Amino acid sequence: MREGDRFHDECGVFGVFRNSGASALTALGLHALQHRGQEAAGIATCARGAFRVERHMGLVGDNFTSQGVIDRLKGDSAIGHTRYSTTGEPALHNVQPLFAETAMGGFAVAHNGNITNAGMLRGTLRERGSIFQSTSDTEVIIHLTATSTKNSFIERFIDAIRQLEGAFALVALTPSMMIGCRDALGIRPLIIGDFEGAYVLASETCALDIIGARYVRDVEPGEMVVITEQGLESMRPFPESHDRFCVFEYVYFARPDSSVGGRNVYGVRKRIGAELARESPAPADVVVPVPDSGTPAAIGYAEASALPFDLGIIRNHYVGRTFIEPSDQIRHMGVKLKHNANREVLAGKRVVLVDDSIVRGTTSLKIVEMVRDAGATEVHMRIASPPTTDSCFYGVDTPEKSKLIASRMSVAELARYIKVDSLAFLSIDGLYRAAGEMRRDPAVPQYCDACFTGEYPTPLTDRAARTPHPQLSFLENAE
Amino acid sequence: MREGDRFHDECGVFGVFRNSGASALTALGLHALQHRGQEAAGIATCARGAFRVERHMGLVGDNFTSQGVIDRLKGDSAIGHTRYSTTGEPALHNVQPLFAETAMGGFAVAHNGNITNAGMLRGTLRERGSIFQSTSDTEVIIHLTATSTKNSFIERFIDAIRQLEGAFALVALTPSMMIGCRDALGIRPLIIGDFEGAYVLASETCALDIIGARYVRDVEPGEMVVITEQGLESMRPFPESHDRFCVFEYVYFARPDSSVGGRNVYGVRKRIGAELARESPAPADVVVPVPDSGTPAAIGYAEASALPFDLGIIRNHYVGRTFIEPSDQIRHMGVKLKHNANREVLAGKRVVLVDDSIVRGTTSLKIVEMVRDAGATEVHMRIASPPTTDSCFYGVDTPEKSKLIASRMSVAELARYIKVDSLAFLSIDGLYRAAGEMRRDPAVPQYCDACFTGEYPTPLTDRAARTPHPQLSFLENAE
Amino acid sequence: MREGDRFHDECGVFGVFRNSGASALTALGLHALQHRGQEAAGIATCARGAFRVERHMGLVGDNFTSQGVIDRLKGDSAIGHTRYSTTGEPALHNVQPLFAETAMGGFAVAHNGNITNAGMLRGTLRERGSIFQSTSDTEVIIHLTATSTKNSFIERFIDAIRQLEGAFALVALTPSMMIGCRDALGIRPLIIGDFEGAYVLASETCALDIIGARYVRDVEPGEMVVITEQGLESMRPFPESHDRFCVFEYVYFARPDSSVGGRNVYGVRKRIGAELARESPAPADVVVPVPDSGTPAAIGYAEASALPFDLGIIRNHYVGRTFIEPSDQIRHMGVKLKHNANREVLAGKRVVLVDDSIVRGTTSLKIVEMVRDAGATEVHMRIASPPTTDSCFYGVDTPEKSKLIASRMSVAELARYIKVDSLAFLSIDGLYRAAGEMRRDPAVPQYCDACFTGEYPTPLTDRAARTPHPQLSFLENAE
Amino acid sequence: MREGDRFHDECGVFGVFRNSGASALTALGLHALQHRGQEAAGIATCARGAFRVERHMGLVGDNFTSQGVIDRLKGDSAIGHTRYSTTGEPALHNVQPLFAETAMGGFAVAHNGNITNAGMLRGTLRERGSIFQSTSDTEVIIHLTATSTKNSFIERFIDAIRQLEGAFALVALTPSMMIGCRDALGIRPLIIGDFEGAYVLASETCALDIIGARYVRDVEPGEMVVITEQGLESMRPFPESHDRFCVFEYVYFARPDSSVGGRNVYGVRKRIGAELARESPAPADVVVPVPDSGTPAAIGYAEASALPFDLGIIRNHYVGRTFIEPSDQIRHMGVKLKHNANREVLAGKRVVLVDDSIVRGTTSLKIVEMVRDAGATEVHMRIASPPTTDSCFYGVDTPEKSKLIASRMSVAELARYIKVDSLAFLSIDGLYRAAGEMRRDPAVPQYCDACFTGEYPTPLTDRAARTPHPQLSFLENAE
Repeated sequence: MREGDRFHDECGVFGVFRNSGASALTALGLHALQHRGQEAAGIATCARGAFRVERHMGLVGDNFTSQGVIDRLKGDSAIGHTRYSTTGEPALHNVQPLFAETAMGGFAVAHNGNITNAGMLRGTLRERGSIFQSTSDTEVIIHLTATSTKNSFIERFIDAIRQLEGAFALVALTPSMMIGCRDALGIRPLIIGDFEGAYVLASETCALDIIGARYVRDVEPGEMVVITEQGLESMRPFPESHDRFCVFEYVYFARPDSSVGGRNVYGVRKRIGAELARESPAPADVVVPVPDSGTPAAIGYAEASALPFDLGIIRNHYVGRTFIEPSDQIRHMGVKLKHNANREVLAGKRVVLVDDSIVRGTTSLKIVEMVRDAGATEVHMRIASPPTTDSCFYGVDTPEKSKLIASRMSVAELARYIKVDSLAFLSIDGLYRAAGEMRRDPAVPQYCDACFTGEYPTPLTDRAARTPHPQLSFLENAE
Repeated sequence: MREGDRFHDECGVFGVFRNSGASALTALGLHALQHRGQEAAGIATCARGAFRVERHMGLVGDNFTSQGVIDRLKGDSAIGHTRYSTTGEPALHNVQPLFAETAMGGFAVAHNGNITNAGMLRGTLRERGSIFQSTSDTEVIIHLTATSTKNSFIERFIDAIRQLEGAFALVALTPSMMIGCRDALGIRPLIIGDFEGAYVLASETCALDIIGARYVRDVEPGEMVVITEQGLESMRPFPESHDRFCVFEYVYFARPDSSVGGRNVYGVRKRIGAELARESPAPADVVVPVPDSGTPAAIGYAEASALPFDLGIIRNHYVGRTFIEPSDQIRHMGVKLKHNANREVLAGKRVVLVDDSIVRGTTSLKIVEMVRDAGATEVHMRIASPPTTDSCFYGVDTPEKSKLIASRMSVAELARYIKVDSLAFLSIDGLYRAAGEMRRDPAVPQYCDACFTGEYPTPLTDRAARTPHPQLSFLENAE
Repeated sequence: MREGDRFHDECGVFGVFRNSGASALTALGLHALQHRGQEAAGIATCARGAFRVERHMGLVGDNFTSQGVIDRLKGDSAIGHTRYSTTGEPALHNVQPLFAETAMGGFAVAHNGNITNAGMLRGTLRERGSIFQSTSDTEVIIHLTATSTKNSFIERFIDAIRQLEGAFALVALTPSMMIGCRDALGIRPLIIGDFEGAYVLASETCALDIIGARYVRDVEPGEMVVITEQGLESMRPFPESHDRFCVFEYVYFARPDSSVGGRNVYGVRKRIGAELARESPAPADVVVPVPDSGTPAAIGYAEASALPFDLGIIRNHYVGRTFIEPSDQIRHMGVKLKHNANREVLAGKRVVLVDDSIVRGTTSLKIVEMVRDAGATEVHMRIASPPTTDSCFYGVDTPEKSKLIASRMSVAELARYIKVDSLAFLSIDGLYRAAGEMRRDPAVPQYCDACFTGEYPTPLTDRAARTPHPQLSFLENAE
Repeated sequence: MREGDRFHDECGVFGVFRNSGASALTALGLHALQHRGQEAAGIATCARGAFRVERHMGLVGDNFTSQGVIDRLKGDSAIGHTRYSTTGEPALHNVQPLFAETAMGGFAVAHNGNITNAGMLRGTLRERGSIFQSTSDTEVIIHLTATSTKNSFIERFIDAIRQLEGAFALVALTPSMMIGCRDALGIRPLIIGDFEGAYVLASETCALDIIGARYVRDVEPGEMVVITEQGLESMRPFPESHDRFCVFEYVYFARPDSSVGGRNVYGVRKRIGAELARESPAPADVVVPVPDSGTPAAIGYAEASALPFDLGIIRNHYVGRTFIEPSDQIRHMGVKLKHNANREVLAGKRVVLVDDSIVRGTTSLKIVEMVRDAGATEVHMRIASPPTTDSCFYGVDTPEKSKLIASRMSVAELARYIKVDSLAFLSIDGLYRAAGEMRRDPAVPQYCDACFTGEYPTPLTDRAARTPHPQLSFLENAE
């Protein structure tokens, strides 16, 4: 999932209720969730009814660490959001948390996921006179809440979220409460922690670890938790449903030291490698990961196949996406900004190369060639997931289906295209086994695996109606 | 009108419809209107349905002169706004033009004036679910338009402005038209010009002069002009009324080389000086203006009294409001950042000092003392307007009544307070004579003179209801 | 002197020794001297041997007013500099004060003037291994001081300045003293003041007025004053000479409320107007200044000729030099950014137009046409100085001789070129009379008047040797 | 080497001569060398005699990737520098390359290393009148060159570098040549590459790989290569000496995929792990690296001891050094910004923890505790180098000796301090074996290993003379 032009965003959310260090704790929590979104981050705090919001393009560690910003973010409760890098969208007005003042008071919302009927809802709201300031789904939730005719904020908020289709894990803050909520299927993660007696909400457990908060439990699929000074109240605003947690969180998105959906991510990834070794062994001298996302599966593969594990590709962790290309003769420049072949490991070797997935295939092609240039005699590519054949409409950022190379090529064709000696993907049942199931239940799959199977667990209203992605007809203060 | 902490804003507006240089022309027009507001400026353009908006704190000449900004502001129509300096308000979200996308399409609005029932309207809109992003009156107009249930944009816009009380001169832009509109009493100015066949709207004629546009006529009180490719259509959305143009535009606010309300400002000011000399002569050697606003009246006074006119106070035009005071011994530091006594002119002289008005009295006190320190033997203060006894609620920035020294002191008390040998204000009838009337008609005054008489020509709904000035309960990205 | 591309800089300097508010006082002093240079400003302070330097592009009021910058500029002594706007030079490394650490300790220097053998000295220093960081003359003074082999700082500094030709008024600061110095002829001004017992140095008295400092005396031509905790010591490092103060300071450069060279500038300018009226009367209805520099002379002219004085041209004090020109049809755009004709005053009138000088003639041409467009029936131009025929090499910014229109045209030709009904310049003897002399003494002129006469009072070594203006062969961090 | 307050800097240098993409190639090369310094970076180019220099605080990928900066850096030759993060030093004036114009023309220099007699040389130069603008050693080289009395630039440059003691790898650029130079012992690395026929110089081979340049050879210890349009000329300006390449480049500093000193770094590190396993086996279930620097040695250790290798600590690669600490109860906050324990791997296990070195011991203490908190039953720490007992004066950034915990504690004491079940360091001979030698030759050691042995291979003149680190007595434009 390393290539450009995505159409939707994965995100991380965090919140803490009634702790004097709320803004600083939120900055730390977002730093731990930075892998879920590097484009921008924001924090909203509330101090005795008065909200502060800071939203900045760039990393948490660059924008939310100074004494100044933390002091400005007064208040004993805070929610935060970190947002994935996208291209071509004018920016700051889409950064979350969003805030609005309504007749029922002010509230801030941060959202991870994607609402599949947001376009339709947006159209209706606009007809009634709501004015949109952003293209984000989150603003739809805000306007639904503001225009609801129910009698209390909670009722209005429930009135709003009941109209949503798709995937969402929400954190909201009002002067008197913090709310956490997951969609009925629980596609996106949200967990509850305890920091010195204060409730914490976060996308992953690694955001608890960084501040030393204790993991309490996951917010359950379809559950809404309302945290006030009286404690946590659990509500069930949606009809009963089955769990369909996103299996791709295990494959790629979540941090390996996190537990989401009740399982440790690193463990699932190592078992993926082991399943892969069992399903698709290779006659090789060394197992080499494409770092960093392929590493746990490569360790699992090496262990299961009793082959040595070694770092044949070194990653440069300093970011550098848009360097000017100085000369046409530079080969694979994009790949080399992040990866370099380690000749010492590769020269003269038959190599098993383990990556998490293949999206467009262009990166794989270049990495394989780089590995061969460094002297590998054979390259056996092993992919730690089934072929990605379908787009995600639930907040994991994937290209449209026609750009997904596995939707157009067979495994054999793809092997020829990326020029490997052999290529194998993990089977869908193998993936489910690694994730703790006996196999995939075709009647009621235990996970959302639409990107591998095309079976979408919710209606895709906007897509069916061909509602275009919302666009603001104006640009502000571009520079 | 030179002292701090004002509560409302005077502004300048400009618009041009269908000329390829729209954004650059608007920048020039706003530069000519810069005296109407130095805090911030904005320009919105429309190019084939797509709007661009740039809004910046600071001067037009600092922010809207680069090739980059003018190129980004694509389009053949533009409106712009320049805004007065206020203190204590978080800023950029209140800078105009404001823009909104509604179900009837996008539109941008720039507004000069003050809506006296904005708070009440805001409350009603919020109850219905409108979400406000600013504290500006202009956003009320936008939400009223967006939530109107009429069938066309024009009807919705009229529906909106008919609900407004107070003073407003509006310029609005949609993809197919530019609208200009003055409130029923015509309190704030708005004029129509012609630049090479393209219609121009501006607060004052000096904005036509800078681009060489021809003055066509004023938008009339209560008139709404709709400019499309078919030409200019005049509408009368309000009930018939009397004209009540703001007389203070002549005293202080408008630029002396402008014509507003059909009269040249410089001419009115010189006549004010002559009336003042006639009403309140002084036994003196020299007439000295408090520059720059007192200069035309001082020339008129000198001519009418056959006394020499001379520059006894020199103004430093470089701005410097917030210098750190290095020492308690520095006297009159605030005044001296802008003015210095010219000893050559003042020493040993009996001086007539002419200023436009007295607000709090603190500046006058310091200027008189500075003039005496420079050797003046007598100081006879002459003020080019009646005592300012009441606040303006129509967009000229004045302190609240209790801070207006003339509301608390008689002229004799005030003369003692500011330590002059004599003090005289222009009479209200003298002011009306200078502005071309025989006298003030007490039954139906020809101008709005509420700041001098307390007779407000419109209801003051918010004030009567003690509606507080709207405040956002949040702060964003303060720095 | 309003047109572009100048080759050298006029500047303002200020210093204060041993007052706890040193940096804030210096900021105020520089604000009062802002008319001497608007491109950039800098302040250097010294606190117990440790120097701080802040230098910023832009106005003093924009960069040296915050608590932060004043707090950073710790110390009880400070010197400051404000620099004229030039085009085409990469910037910040030339902004003063310059600072250097030498074996004799650190010192900072600010300089007003122009060294006419700087290029020659620079070449010699570079040969010996001195490395230059700027193209400013001031750095030559620093390297001369650093490489001197004398035994004390004072001796080294005198060793340095004795090698200089040209015009200079210097202020220098070391941990134990502040030095003020004028060249042997006293071409550029420098005055001494007293602020609560602390010595102050400044280019003009208006910088004393703003802080309420008392004027003590001028630093005399050829004098060097060394101010320590023991008081002020006067030295005479140069051979005896005649005074040749720059007469153009009176015509245009100094602020009218200042006294320089022992005379009040406003008084000289009014006398210039009176002399001009006597020498060149005009059959007219009104006297109109080109504001602001022509105003005092216009008042003098009006008084002496018993004609009414009126503001026929209104100046927009907001700066806006580089607006994008939106259309070829805009006439005189450059002029109109600053000036607008006031039709009320001009229409149907025979106008005497008073300006301080004519440089290239292009501005005059446009102003005359603008005045005629506003309805003036006759335009009689009167110039408050003799024809400017020669370049200044002493720090007043003038174009090269061939660009000076008066060096190429007779008065009659020039009158036709700028399309006036009559044109007259002040005579050189008239100028000397206004400046307090009986007449110009051709043997030993009492002023430097080289720009009017071509008689340069010092050698012009670099010019004779055709030494090119120094250029750095590198650019740093341009943006 | 992860803890704060270092006193000297490690750096990376790069240069390319005569290729039209010089500035973009240099940006890429510096990006690959970013691990050698993240505080700041600079590039100097030369185009037909005219130099451009851009220097910015922050990462190469943030400052040298835009079309604008690359276009400004005109020229077909370029040198660049990347600089390590230090604290407490005002910054930009110390960023390299430095540039100077001398009587022999302009030249730019970038420098990796540390001059041990720089303070003494600086004192002498200052006595003679040289003015320093920075505290960097590199400026000493520039002034030595500028003040040399030799007849050509090359001779002056050699005259300069012959006066230097200590460690340096230099890249210099003049209009006609690029120079590369290593000190007589070759302590710091410098290699030669070929990019499409153009010579390249770089600190490590990974900077060749990123642009696809071919490795030619190392610049030899004591060699100076002069690259002109005629090709490469090798000179030997220093007396003959033994090689003493920095062994710590293998342990920690160089990138694992680089070859420096003729050896692949990854290979040396894996052999270090194997040596360590042989010398100090441990009764354990899993080998866990402290990522990322401990990883290759951990893989080597695991292989040699037939124990499983696993990622028990996950690194967060997003930087976040100065987060505000929200609460005293947060344990190990500093460590957790970068590392988190992976409970899945550690719980219930006996763990071999492999790190590259121990400096102050504080980080080790916290990591061990974090590993135990995650459930490890035993922790056996293995360090991939001998105890660091002495400071480096050659450009690797280490604290002073008294802060080095291994200089104060025995291994047993240290084991108790960091609370491990066992602790072992690699022996010095083990390190030499891993680096390809039979053993350390005590008479003439093959490497510089002063940080482990205290045997410094050059005089330490400034240290012996207690010359203080140079300090500028002024601060400029701090913010």
